[in-house]
Amino acid sequence: MTNDEGRPLQSARGGLRCLCLVIHAPHDLRVDEREVEGPGPGEVAVRIGYGGICGSDLHYYHDGGFGTVRIKRPMTLGHEVAGTVHAVGEGVTRVKPGDRIAVNPSRPCAACVYCLEGLPNQCLDMRFYGSAMRDPHVDGAFRQLLVCGEVQCEPVAAHVPLRHAALAEPFSVCLHGVARAGALLNKRVLVSGCGPIGCLAVAAARVHGAAEITAVDLTDETLAVARAMGAHETINVARDTDWVQRYAADGRTRKGTFDVMFECSGNERALRAGLDVMRPRGVVVQLGLGGDVSLPQNMVVAKELTVCGSFRFHAEFALAVRLINEGRVDMRPMITGAFPLERAKEAFDLASDRKRAMKVLLEFEAEAE
Amino acid sequence: MTNDEGRPLQSARGGLRCLCLVIHAPHDLRVDEREVEGPGPGEVAVRIGYGGICGSDLHYYHDGGFGTVRIKRPMTLGHEVAGTVHAVGEGVTRVKPGDRIAVNPSRPCAACVYCLEGLPNQCLDMRFYGSAMRDPHVDGAFRQLLVCGEVQCEPVAAHVPLRHAALAEPFSVCLHGVARAGALLNKRVLVSGCGPIGCLAVAAARVHGAAEITAVDLTDETLAVARAMGAHETINVARDTDWVQRYAADGRTRKGTFDVMFECSGNERALRAGLDVMRPRGVVVQLGLGGDVSLPQNMVVAKELTVCGSFRFHAEFALAVRLINEGRVDMRPMITGAFPLERAKEAFDLASDRKRAMKVLLEFEAEAE
Amino acid sequence: MTNDEGRPLQSARGGLRCLCLVIHAPHDLRVDEREVEGPGPGEVAVRIGYGGICGSDLHYYHDGGFGTVRIKRPMTLGHEVAGTVHAVGEGVTRVKPGDRIAVNPSRPCAACVYCLEGLPNQCLDMRFYGSAMRDPHVDGAFRQLLVCGEVQCEPVAAHVPLRHAALAEPFSVCLHGVARAGALLNKRVLVSGCGPIGCLAVAAARVHGAAEITAVDLTDETLAVARAMGAHETINVARDTDWVQRYAADGRTRKGTFDVMFECSGNERALRAGLDVMRPRGVVVQLGLGGDVSLPQNMVVAKELTVCGSFRFHAEFALAVRLINEGRVDMRPMITGAFPLERAKEAFDLASDRKRAMKVLLEFEAEAE
Amino acid sequence: MTNDEGRPLQSARGGLRCLCLVIHAPHDLRVDEREVEGPGPGEVAVRIGYGGICGSDLHYYHDGGFGTVRIKRPMTLGHEVAGTVHAVGEGVTRVKPGDRIAVNPSRPCAACVYCLEGLPNQCLDMRFYGSAMRDPHVDGAFRQLLVCGEVQCEPVAAHVPLRHAALAEPFSVCLHGVARAGALLNKRVLVSGCGPIGCLAVAAARVHGAAEITAVDLTDETLAVARAMGAHETINVARDTDWVQRYAADGRTRKGTFDVMFECSGNERALRAGLDVMRPRGVVVQLGLGGDVSLPQNMVVAKELTVCGSFRFHAEFALAVRLINEGRVDMRPMITGAFPLERAKEAFDLASDRKRAMKVLLEFEAEAE
Repeated sequence: MTNDEGRPLQSARGGLRCLCLVIHAPHDLRVDEREVEGPGPGEVAVRIGYGGICGSDLHYYHDGGFGTVRIKRPMTLGHEVAGTVHAVGEGVTRVKPGDRIAVNPSRPCAACVYCLEGLPNQCLDMRFYGSAMRDPHVDGAFRQLLVCGEVQCEPVAAHVPLRHAALAEPFSVCLHGVARAGALLNKRVLVSGCGPIGCLAVAAARVHGAAEITAVDLTDETLAVARAMGAHETINVARDTDWVQRYAADGRTRKGTFDVMFECSGNERALRAGLDVMRPRGVVVQLGLGGDVSLPQNMVVAKELTVCGSFRFHAEFALAVRLINEGRVDMRPMITGAFPLERAKEAFDLASDRKRAMKVLLEFEAEAE
Repeated sequence: MTNDEGRPLQSARGGLRCLCLVIHAPHDLRVDEREVEGPGPGEVAVRIGYGGICGSDLHYYHDGGFGTVRIKRPMTLGHEVAGTVHAVGEGVTRVKPGDRIAVNPSRPCAACVYCLEGLPNQCLDMRFYGSAMRDPHVDGAFRQLLVCGEVQCEPVAAHVPLRHAALAEPFSVCLHGVARAGALLNKRVLVSGCGPIGCLAVAAARVHGAAEITAVDLTDETLAVARAMGAHETINVARDTDWVQRYAADGRTRKGTFDVMFECSGNERALRAGLDVMRPRGVVVQLGLGGDVSLPQNMVVAKELTVCGSFRFHAEFALAVRLINEGRVDMRPMITGAFPLERAKEAFDLASDRKRAMKVLLEFEAEAE
Repeated sequence: MTNDEGRPLQSARGGLRCLCLVIHAPHDLRVDEREVEGPGPGEVAVRIGYGGICGSDLHYYHDGGFGTVRIKRPMTLGHEVAGTVHAVGEGVTRVKPGDRIAVNPSRPCAACVYCLEGLPNQCLDMRFYGSAMRDPHVDGAFRQLLVCGEVQCEPVAAHVPLRHAALAEPFSVCLHGVARAGALLNKRVLVSGCGPIGCLAVAAARVHGAAEITAVDLTDETLAVARAMGAHETINVARDTDWVQRYAADGRTRKGTFDVMFECSGNERALRAGLDVMRPRGVVVQLGLGGDVSLPQNMVVAKELTVCGSFRFHAEFALAVRLINEGRVDMRPMITGAFPLERAKEAFDLASDRKRAMKVLLEFEAEAE
Repeated sequence: MTNDEGRPLQSARGGLRCLCLVIHAPHDLRVDEREVEGPGPGEVAVRIGYGGICGSDLHYYHDGGFGTVRIKRPMTLGHEVAGTVHAVGEGVTRVKPGDRIAVNPSRPCAACVYCLEGLPNQCLDMRFYGSAMRDPHVDGAFRQLLVCGEVQCEPVAAHVPLRHAALAEPFSVCLHGVARAGALLNKRVLVSGCGPIGCLAVAAARVHGAAEITAVDLTDETLAVARAMGAHETINVARDTDWVQRYAADGRTRKGTFDVMFECSGNERALRAGLDVMRPRGVVVQLGLGGDVSLPQNMVVAKELTVCGSFRFHAEFALAVRLINEGRVDMRPMITGAFPLERAKEAFDLASDRKRAMKVLLEFEAEAE
């Protein structure tokens, strides 16, 4: 194991000790010290720089989970991280100490039936960071030091701030989502719900060739971000209550307007309004999670609409980092702020306020902007 | 105008008179006499032999319509018919008097934006027989004599009974539905709801190459028909309440079993059960109409399921007739019985009883079996 | 290791000895005795019943290989086989001694980049029976006793002769080919070249829902088999030299006739004639192997044709056996005859004569028909 | 008819007279004066500003046509034009005098079988500007004044020079081509041949989400333009003769590198080299026209490659103008120069010299840059 010198971490008994952000119970978020095994063959030790707080982190924080997924024992949170290579294990060639990288939190087994069908995101034995889906839970990446596989590391370009690179993960989710819709070239796209996923879906749709992107939400602040990320038009549906009528079937010249919708709110009313304004054969990609939603079956049938789910990502992670590296997507408008680990609770509370926050980051090791 | 001699219809004032089955109001079904204009250029006069009673006919009969579609004035019912060419107008070459044909009830405009996209079933100016979707309503084909376009006529093979050919229309609906699912070769298919559409979806999936077809319903009688139409396995879900468990995710080796589902019941519980037993990336084609249905959004997202609607048909009509002509689909198991026009009410009542009836036909002109 | 008793094979030193058909050099085909290691864990010992002679076997026999693939040392031939389970190794549950099975000769690595993309037929480390593509060559299945993986065994129904089951492999090739074309429902299909692959492509297209299948070849004998396998129309293009004109662009009403073509001759003239009779956006699937072919680029561009290759198969093998088991495809018309191992040379010579032979089988252990 | 005043054109007998660039025979290019009928209902008279010289114009100029398409009588050339609305006929609402527009030269019939399938570019009765495919030929748009349909007019943004807008047509060809390849998101793309079509294919692939674009050509000048249009990497294959080896199958880790290739050279060697470097299941879109090309059939089969043609465009024209208007594609690097009509011969000669010229424009009415 070789490291990049100069920035020692406290080590003992051959291992390394670091601070982790651990959820113990709803609203019981603690900074715990844990020991890390040094990188084995093919592994990389990463000093995490920044980590984005995601909706699922917030669910664990507020509710201890979502649906049937519940924390049963303390779990380190976090899966949207970027950092600096601290040390590499034997045989690692993809990165070297000092390299700045984004970390792919998705670790499929590469052996199950779905992995062998080319659907690693559906892996039967997935180990995704910071997830209580399986028990024992898989610890997350909100920690000073993370040991991951070489294959999870995507190099970040010198001019890209690590805080931007930390958004590669949610951006991957959106790239996977737009890929689910098929080619977007020359398509009119509706994005419903302009939280982080909605705004990044705007960016992903833009990169994927969408002709025109309309974003809808209930708050002007998030719509402004959607515009900054590439939406051609934004509609505050709380104020502009006629919008559905303007785009829906008019009885003579059209049965709807949009070819593709990315539903990022998880909200039933948003989904229903979206179905109204879709063209025949339109495709609705569901990215937002919610509970049960009521769907007007007759409209789905009569307009031959398609509603399809999109879950996580895999190959899209490398693409996300590449697009950020090349400046084809600029993450600046997405970032609300970065908080040091000791102010994690403050960060989580801010992230929970949709009016004030888009993407809130935790700062594990500061980088000059 | 030339005709096939020998079978005069009462004519007056140059026109022809015939009996029609007209819905005046819910449960007010009458046999009315109407005058028919002889076939103009490119038109064909058809003596209807048999007409199948469809779910939408039943909706007009029982409720005066469905959803927002309501009869506002008397309307001749019916759109599943086959008969014999009586006379042809100028320039008709496709058929001649005496030919036995199935009649395509779908008449798109061939000029609107959707027709020009290759989606005639989404035509903005569709004239579909026996439909109150537009006002004035489009009269239907439950009548002794029908004048239609040459292009609507599909010749029926000599050995095929007209009563079988009358099923070309609902079979077209199912062929369109299976086409919506993409290639079925080597796919495991679930058909939920074994009324006429479900049973014909079984036949359509079989023709389209499905590897294995499982049909589910609540009654043994309909399941027996599904089996006769090609289902490999049938499940009475009223009795076999463990069926979902046998096919759903088992936590280790699979997240579900079926690649494609044709939902033909319009029933929410059936749809939800189906989602449970679908594989990741499975496709649910919604053929049955119902009201609003509640969908478990999280499952759609996590398994990346696709739910898509299928509406009517167009090019599939000719295919349906061809498959019946070639004996690749045998309609015998589908037919419950045929009733002369004067017993129409009896026929409608029988057709309304799912336990006793699969497809009930009206007989306008008898043909020896 | 348990076996099915009663039919001892000569064993020595713990192993089993059996006869194999080995190619030593062009036209030097010998029956050699070789020792077989008994089935290890997860393995199955199969007494081969019948083996079909394939075009690649003939290439090794006549030319010592094809293209850059050449035999460098003696190699057992054969990859189209069916037989009876003789013994099973530890942990095998899928089959038991006495079961009649078809053997999937395709053994991808399940670990390379293409296997993980769901393209096992493109495996970088494929071990396909009887192939000199890699060195050391992979010995084939023309042998009395074969030890294979449990996963390669597909049970054959009691009423299906093993000689029919031996055709599962070439039928898989064709099922893979028709899958490459996308959905065939309501498509007009042209099959060019009616050797074994062409005739089985007819059957596969039929199973996959093709509306109408036209087969073309130069000899009436093979066309008769194509008809028996499901072709609607056959054309002897040696005699009927106007056929292209009848189906090609006519300058007013069409630019061609067929939606999909399966090119199974590997012949340049056949491919070019096919392009002439394809509709705009038509798809040509190339199944036959040949050398370089000259393509009219301007026609490919102007009609926006698609030409795509199809190579081997994987999941289709189980489907092939299922379709044969269910009687959805009848292999009888395909089989020219079966020859005992000692008459292998005679069998190879007959198989080489397209006028007299469709599929010629070797008989390793006779089964009453 | 209302016009924009101020810029009178010579008119006589109620019509308008204007200069046209007419090909009479190979190398016999003349500026002829012709009379134009004023715009009828739904029509628009356009004062052409700029017109791009296309490969087909050059073929008419040098050879009097290509393939079987030959000029039989004098024909006005040109189909890549942009200009200013001079006057509009009755009922026109889409544009008004003074508007700057790009003109879509594609005029399908909207009634034939292919138009009704959503394939207007395959129209049986297409009237495409400046084409000798039909006789009488369809005159082109290299003229001072053009009367076209309202539906052909796409408004150009105020900040976009008309000389850029004139490139909307070839850009449409490329957008159609990239659409033929399906979604490009996360794909590695090879563009072979960096003439105007190749360079615009680079831009189109970039807009469509390609992850990485490699362009190859024989001259550094064109490669520089490809880079300016968005290629990540360019290779001069005249100099770098090892390039195929670097990207082709290496026998262990890959069978090729690129997912999609846009073949824009029409050159056989380029196509063959491309096949070598494609991944399994790769898609080659043929955009360049050439004569017959020899294809290695065995490689197409073994790697299951797809070669498909792309012809003209339709809906993509509006998209092209939109992308130029929004600055998502910058046409500056594409333009070699603009020549007034009287120097047309010079312009054609320059355009014929691939070393010196990318896109050469004719200037019919100058616009300040």
